[in-house]
This record gives sequence, C-alpha cells and structure tokens, in this order.
Amino acid sequence: MEAYLDNSATTPCLESVKEIVVKTMMEDFGNPSSKHLKGVQAEQYLRRSREQIAKTLKVNEKEIFFTSGGSESDNWALIGAAMANRRAGNHIITTAVEHAAVLQTFAFLEEQGFRVTYLPVDQEGVVDLDALQNALCDETILVSMMYVNNEIGTIEPVAKAAELVKAKNPGILFHVDGIQAYGKLRIYPKKLKIDMLSVSGHKIHGPKGIGFLYIADKVKIHPLILGGGQQRGMRSGTDNVPGAAGLGVAAEAAYTDFQEKTEHLLELKRRFLEGVQELDGVTIQGQARRGAEFGAPQIVSVSFADVRSEVLLHALEEKGVYISSGSACSSNKKIPVSGVLKEIGVDKKLLESTVRFSFSSLTTMEEIEYCLKQLGEIVPVLRRFTRH
Amino acid sequence: MEAYLDNSATTPCLESVKEIVVKTMMEDFGNPSSKHLKGVQAEQYLRRSREQIAKTLKVNEKEIFFTSGGSESDNWALIGAAMANRRAGNHIITTAVEHAAVLQTFAFLEEQGFRVTYLPVDQEGVVDLDALQNALCDETILVSMMYVNNEIGTIEPVAKAAELVKAKNPGILFHVDGIQAYGKLRIYPKKLKIDMLSVSGHKIHGPKGIGFLYIADKVKIHPLILGGGQQRGMRSGTDNVPGAAGLGVAAEAAYTDFQEKTEHLLELKRRFLEGVQELDGVTIQGQARRGAEFGAPQIVSVSFADVRSEVLLHALEEKGVYISSGSACSSNKKIPVSGVLKEIGVDKKLLESTVRFSFSSLTTMEEIEYCLKQLGEIVPVLRRFTRH
Repeated sequence: MEAYLDNSATTPCLESVKEIVVKTMMEDFGNPSSKHLKGVQAEQYLRRSREQIAKTLKVNEKEIFFTSGGSESDNWALIGAAMANRRAGNHIITTAVEHAAVLQTFAFLEEQGFRVTYLPVDQEGVVDLDALQNALCDETILVSMMYVNNEIGTIEPVAKAAELVKAKNPGILFHVDGIQAYGKLRIYPKKLKIDMLSVSGHKIHGPKGIGFLYIADKVKIHPLILGGGQQRGMRSGTDNVPGAAGLGVAAEAAYTDFQEKTEHLLELKRRFLEGVQELDGVTIQGQARRGAEFGAPQIVSVSFADVRSEVLLHALEEKGVYISSGSACSSNKKIPVSGVLKEIGVDKKLLESTVRFSFSSLTTMEEIEYCLKQLGEIVPVLRRFTRH
Repeated sequence: MEAYLDNSATTPCLESVKEIVVKTMMEDFGNPSSKHLKGVQAEQYLRRSREQIAKTLKVNEKEIFFTSGGSESDNWALIGAAMANRRAGNHIITTAVEHAAVLQTFAFLEEQGFRVTYLPVDQEGVVDLDALQNALCDETILVSMMYVNNEIGTIEPVAKAAELVKAKNPGILFHVDGIQAYGKLRIYPKKLKIDMLSVSGHKIHGPKGIGFLYIADKVKIHPLILGGGQQRGMRSGTDNVPGAAGLGVAAEAAYTDFQEKTEHLLELKRRFLEGVQELDGVTIQGQARRGAEFGAPQIVSVSFADVRSEVLLHALEEKGVYISSGSACSSNKKIPVSGVLKEIGVDKKLLESTVRFSFSSLTTMEEIEYCLKQLGEIVPVLRRFTRH
C-alpha cells in the first residue's frame, strides 16, 4: 500500500485536467497569437480558463494573468509592484514566515534600495498585527503576506491585515501568497481587499509550470517578462494553452462540492491528529495543536522527539508513505532546519525532528490509517536507535 | 484538407512527447525537491531531459537550465547578464531585427541606464558585421543576436559575430536567441563561442510553457526568478517535470535522422518556392530569394503585390490553410507592419502584403501542393477586389 501525504509539495493531475492538456497539445495546439482559426480556438481555451478561475474568486476574468507558477507570480507581484510604485515610497513589509519565493524577492528588493520590515509571528505562526500597525508608515508602498503557511498550515489574518493596511493608506498594495490556501479556503479578493493574489496549478491537481497572478483592475504593476505583448502586455511569451486550460479545469474542480471536500479533509485531519497524538513524544505545531478545526484543513506539522525528520521520512518511504521534512520548496538547501519552525520558537531539540503531513481531496482514510500504523511501528524503533 | 504552415508560430506535440507528459502528470508526478522516492523519480526525468538536450548541443548537462519558454530565456539571459556585469561596463549590443522578447528587454535595460547599439541589417536581413566591429568598445559587456530570423528565415552570421566579439574582449558575453534555429540547424555553442542560447519547446513539437537557457559553465548571470533555490539557485519554482521531460524527448527527436529531416524541409521549400514564383506579383523576402538552399529550411516569407496580408490569411484559412502575417509573437499588436520587413527595406507597398509560410518535419508535400493550389486560385481573386 501507498500513502501519498505530501500534497502540499505537489499533487497528481486530475483525469479531467489530463484530458484537456492532451487535447490542447495534440489537436487544438494553435498559438493564441496567431490570427487564423487555430489561434482563435487556442485563445478560447485561455478565455474559458480565466472565466473558470475568476468565478472561484468572484473577480473579473480580465484580472487573471497566467504565469509559469507560484514562484513567478510572487516574484512578479513584488518586483512589479515595488518598481512601479518606487516614487510613492521605498518601504515594503512582509512576514518572517513567508515562502522563499517571497523572502528571496524581498531580499533582492532590499539590495535595490528598498527598506524592508519583516513582521514577527506568535508561537502558532500567526503574524503580529500590532507589529504591522506600527510598521506602516508614509513611505510604505507594499505589504505581502501568505494566506496559509506551507510548513505548518497556519491561517494568517489576511482580512484584518488588509484592513490595517488600507486604513493607513488605500494606495498601499496588499499582496497575498495564496499558493497553499487556494482550493482549500474560499478566497474573495474584493471582499478581503487583496490587490494581488499568487496561485500555483500543481498544488490543486493542475499541471506544473502554470499558475496565475490575480491583479485587481486598478492596480498598476510592471511586467516581469517582456516581449511579444501577450496578456495585454503584462506577461509576454507564447501562452501556455495546455497549462492554462488544465489550471482552469483544476480550479473549477477544487471549488466544486467544496463543502464536502473540506469536510473530508477535516475528517482526515481529525483522525490523523487523534492517532498521532496516541504516540509518545509527539508535539503538534501551529494552530492544529488546538484541534483539527484550527489552521488549514490539509496540513499537519508534527515533531517527534528524538527522531530525526530525514530518518523518519526515509523509514516511512520504505513503507510507501510519502511525507515532507520542511517544505519541498526549501528542501534543496543544505540546511535542514526550517526558518518557520525557528520563528515560532520550536524547542531547539525538535527543530530537526519535525515533519509535515499534507492531504488533498483525493487522500483516503485508508491512507491515513496506514500512515498511523507505520508511524506506530517505526517511531519507537527509530527512538531506540537514537537513544543508544 | 488542411495545411498547417504556421510551424514557426507553434507546432503540435509529438506522440512520444504526449506520452511522457501524461506519465509525469499522472503517475510519476512527484516534486523533484521532495526528498522521498517520488521526488527522486521526478528528479530523474529532469536529469534525463538535460542529458538529451545537452547531447544535441555537445555541452554539459549542468549548462542546461529550464525556463517557462523562449521569452523567459531571452529576458533572463539579457537582464541576468547585464545586471551581473554592470561593473564591467554599461554598453550592450543587439540587432534591429530581433524578436520582441529581445528588443523589449533591451528597451528595458536602456531605461535602467545601459547604452544600447542596434546593429543594422542588409536587404536579406543579415546583420552588418562591420557595424558590430565598430560598435564594440571597452564598455561593451553583452552582445545578443538571433540565429534564425523568425519572420524571414535569415540565418545570421553568428560564428563570425562571436569571433569579433571575443577578439575584442573574451569577457563580453555573447547571447544567441536560438528559438527558430534549434532543431533546424546543428548548433554547437562551444565551437561557436556562444555563452548563452535561448530555446523554446513548442517550436520543436515539444510542450508549451517550457524552454531552456544554455549557460556556459563559467558564465555568471543573475537569476530572474528567485525562491526555493531550484536549479542550483539559478531558476526557482517547482520544476515543471512534464514540460522538461517532454522537451527532452522533443529535442532528441528533432536531431534524430536530422539529415533526412533537413532534406525533407528543403524539398518542401524548393517546391513551394518554385510553385509560388509561378504566380504573378510575387516577391520572396530574405535569403530564400536566392534559392531554397539559402536561409533556414523551414521559413519562407512572400510578398503578394496588391494583396493585404490579413485578407490573404483569412481567405486561406477558409480553405484550411494556416499561415502567418508577421510573426505570431507580434501579431497581438495593433500595427500590422513588421519591423523586420521595414529594416530590410521592403517596398512600402509590400509591407502589408507579406506573409510567412513555415514548415516542420511533419509537414507533407501534399500540404504544400494544396497550399499552392489555393494560392493560385485566391490571389488573383483578391487582386481583382483590391484593384477596383
């Protein structure tokens, strides 16, 4: 048996996604920039996808711009907004627990002369809104905050943060990295006063190599990739029709029977939390420590005292259980320790003993039970070795 | 019957490309950054693809970096190189007939304070090497030149240009936009002294949304997309495994039976040139005016006096013949007139009467004959309307 519990790293594509990708690779393969029929047909796939996505967010399809994925969306939103608004001020704000695509981009902007404030978080990873209030100043032009933390599943107070930002100055742009939140939470940018929202396709059973950036109608940012003027000059390059079409299908599917899917994820999470807490020396990180209803429904971060996360990962892998130590996106790094875990003040001894289990609507209760069974057998064995 | 003669805009995917894309979307769907087996398996697809590509160029697989396509490759190469070498000088050189992904990026760099020289071309679109020689100076840090012109198929003297550049100063980076050349010409960057080469997947029967940038081992450029540190920190973002795997298969296929494929393209081109020149009021643009052996084997640019290119395009479309007026990549623009055609001094009356026919190894002689037959019937009819 296999249990793929690394869905926050990536997900398999839906059958319906595969079908439209294949159709647009093989049959309706035109370049939307071509003026003939095959171009027009290809363009219709883009339009349909934008409609599907826009509907899930209750926004206008003209506010959806395709990118090559979440990282490009984040880079573009931040660099594009900072550069376009440089004259209005040089202060930008983000949090200490963002994904590397945001943190590295802020570091780049810092090199370019912007002053950056990194907001601290509490023990559950929730951003300190007083710190945000204090940081906002007349020079602030941009605030970026993730919606759901990719490592510990904490849901950030995006709505309240937006209120503070816009109360200070409606001209300050508010960007949300929604990569782990989209498809799992209902997100309505207009209501939430989000100016820009980054989303990735492969986290929601869509294709890799595609994502989108929602840019609210009146927001002006610079393009990141220049050229043929596709997407109204905002993102050049031949449109990735198969990717976009697949993303549209995946987006629509993610919000179809949304309530049932959320219930299902919560059931999985509840059972998993219950089962894992029956083991000795287990600490749940993030909001989920208070129960399954707290934090995002698909992510559980667990510390196993005296067990090295990488050793556990490989021991589970041998049993066909796939999980993550830290986020996949930062696992290339030599340093195995997560910045997020440090920021939330995880005990030093647990820093290298924390792993992430992440579910999707395709995850089954059998997979959860199988994983729990394996954990019950493996963890005590690994501890015996560690404690020698 | 249909004749798809717009292969320089985009191509359908090969069956073998589809197969590996589907496999990596549905089964081997892991994130290469994941440390478990599914991540390792996914990583192997990337490695295999880099090997396939590197072999076609006779370079090391570590010199291949995946991007979201040709435009990103061009943007990254130029911005990354200019920014990384700013201290060495602020003069950069390109040609007047480049693709918008290069021209717009140079315009951006000009705004950033770089001094830009645009080299002129002759009547066939060949870059003036004397002008290059004269432009090179102690402040020059980067030269960018396309290999095959996307609108008229002209092959640029890349090897000679590289000689001039490197003779002036081996530290000047030489970038080649190989998007229309790769898969059609043999390109050996080491021999040609190319430091960076941009390639797109969907022009060679590979997937859309994927491309690569070859960066010679010792060349240092800045990344364009920051984040999780994928691709040794040079291009962050979850690796597009299906795209990369498909690109590897397409690259290998493009250079398998290469001689036969080239012969086939030349036969198509020869017959097409012969047939189209039997019509009245026809002017072949670019090197092909001297014969099929001149210029790239897959592109023919033809002016039909007194026929508007868009009208011809749509009249042919009704017959199932798909061609391009200008390049697809610039066809979003309101202005139908091509910068390339102006640069090569095309008669003002012919500027809006020029179309591009482009072939691929999958194009059949039947398609060529069908297209010629349609042209023979349509062109005189359209002229009758124009001349009223």
